[in-house]
Amino acid sequence: MTPEEIARASADRMWELDAVSVAQGMELTSVGPGDACVTMRVLPTMLNAHKMCHGGHIFTLADTAFAYACNSHGVSTVAQHCSITYLAPARLNDLLTAHAREVQVAGRTGVYDVSIANQNGLAIAEFRGLSRAVPKAPIGGAP
Amino acid sequence: MTPEEIARASADRMWELDAVSVAQGMELTSVGPGDACVTMRVLPTMLNAHKMCHGGHIFTLADTAFAYACNSHGVSTVAQHCSITYLAPARLNDLLTAHAREVQVAGRTGVYDVSIANQNGLAIAEFRGLSRAVPKAPIGGAP
Amino acid sequence: MTPEEIARASADRMWELDAVSVAQGMELTSVGPGDACVTMRVLPTMLNAHKMCHGGHIFTLADTAFAYACNSHGVSTVAQHCSITYLAPARLNDLLTAHAREVQVAGRTGVYDVSIANQNGLAIAEFRGLSRAVPKAPIGGAP
Amino acid sequence: MTPEEIARASADRMWELDAVSVAQGMELTSVGPGDACVTMRVLPTMLNAHKMCHGGHIFTLADTAFAYACNSHGVSTVAQHCSITYLAPARLNDLLTAHAREVQVAGRTGVYDVSIANQNGLAIAEFRGLSRAVPKAPIGGAP
Repeated sequence: MTPEEIARASADRMWELDAVSVAQGMELTSVGPGDACVTMRVLPTMLNAHKMCHGGHIFTLADTAFAYACNSHGVSTVAQHCSITYLAPARLNDLLTAHAREVQVAGRTGVYDVSIANQNGLAIAEFRGLSRAVPKAPIGGAP
Repeated sequence: MTPEEIARASADRMWELDAVSVAQGMELTSVGPGDACVTMRVLPTMLNAHKMCHGGHIFTLADTAFAYACNSHGVSTVAQHCSITYLAPARLNDLLTAHAREVQVAGRTGVYDVSIANQNGLAIAEFRGLSRAVPKAPIGGAP
Repeated sequence: MTPEEIARASADRMWELDAVSVAQGMELTSVGPGDACVTMRVLPTMLNAHKMCHGGHIFTLADTAFAYACNSHGVSTVAQHCSITYLAPARLNDLLTAHAREVQVAGRTGVYDVSIANQNGLAIAEFRGLSRAVPKAPIGGAP
Repeated sequence: MTPEEIARASADRMWELDAVSVAQGMELTSVGPGDACVTMRVLPTMLNAHKMCHGGHIFTLADTAFAYACNSHGVSTVAQHCSITYLAPARLNDLLTAHAREVQVAGRTGVYDVSIANQNGLAIAEFRGLSRAVPKAPIGGAP
């Protein structure tokens, strides 16, 4: 299998079991080695008291793109530490895209950056995730 | 009004408008000046491909406790940067508690820590949030 | 040996080899299980272009307190990820104290918080460090 | 002045006042709009008890590159929050390069990433900094 085929196969196995992403209306629009794009529309149920998209939903979108990117090499990998910086509010009906790409992998540790933008290309948030490979666990199985 | 009454009144205004927390079955179990506790049960729809609670849901729980704590002084305050470290998986039906408390406030910036534990007191995650006060915005209104 | 004696013995071994802390005039004022205090005076060579103490020196002070706290259990432990939030500038001749304490330890991962304050108790910065135990390495030896 | 000339002029003003970078033997090898490279050799005084370069020195190098990049637009800018992930140890005599580049600027907030590598291109650490513009302060003056 090529790296691209491994990334696609890992993503397919994960997506079947990924109740959260489906429930929030996410779509995996692309996946490759160390790279993934996921989109989500801001629904009325995602708004906080300020009528902006709740930071938790933006984080979850970014975290999902991160998960597909860091599992794209065919080795089961989990999130260890994540951080997010909010740059502009996302509003009702915005179509958000989270683009995750690999920055570095060193041993079992990986660093991934995820940029979240709206349909106009406006930066909404920047996310950075640290992953840790758990090679004995099957992707989509219990770690 | 006492600081405790201000915290309670701010929380009441936020909760009325907080569709996300209600939708995820969260409960605000206590609130005071710079302090808030929020609980959430892990539902089947919250599980990821590894059958653990999706990190996004744990983050959202912590972020909610952070929001109530940093808005507890009666000044509208938004999240600017958040980080989370995952320590142990949360499982189906676990009852998670997020306890947010103020670490420092300097000018318009605040630092808040949130500890997330399960029903047995096991540490699930540690969250740190940086807030920024936006004094002109009403709590629960558009910033 | 009691936990307190182990913490003191670990600190003594580290301090002998700790050229950086000595060179910057730091003092280890207390150490115990999961806990350490380190002080440093802001010297003219530590000022940045804004005439404030360079963030790197504040970080190094915090990182040193973190290192003594996370190595206090007698198991060699290294920093994996650190973050710092700057709250107020430190000025020439300020005497800074960094107080590190353990928040959580789960398996080989630890979370430590370090508060940095000046001689008046004013909060200068808040630091959070993630450690990873490397049990085979001697404290003060090559990892 | 072109953006490149503004970046160079800002850097020149900062460097004159930058006692810390000079004292640690750093060199500013390039600077442009939102971008800066700084090098540093690991000296015996920079080693920790594990005979690796102290994390504080690696942070300080990254923080310096960050400072030159975020001040490159001619507006005085300070660090607000920084995080660093350590990927591999730096050893005695290693020549480290920190390359800072702008990820996003939104209002007065900026996000900058800094990659630190050794003379063989091996990734040593990844740093992310959040900056805040303080337009009334002169670059190199008191904020």
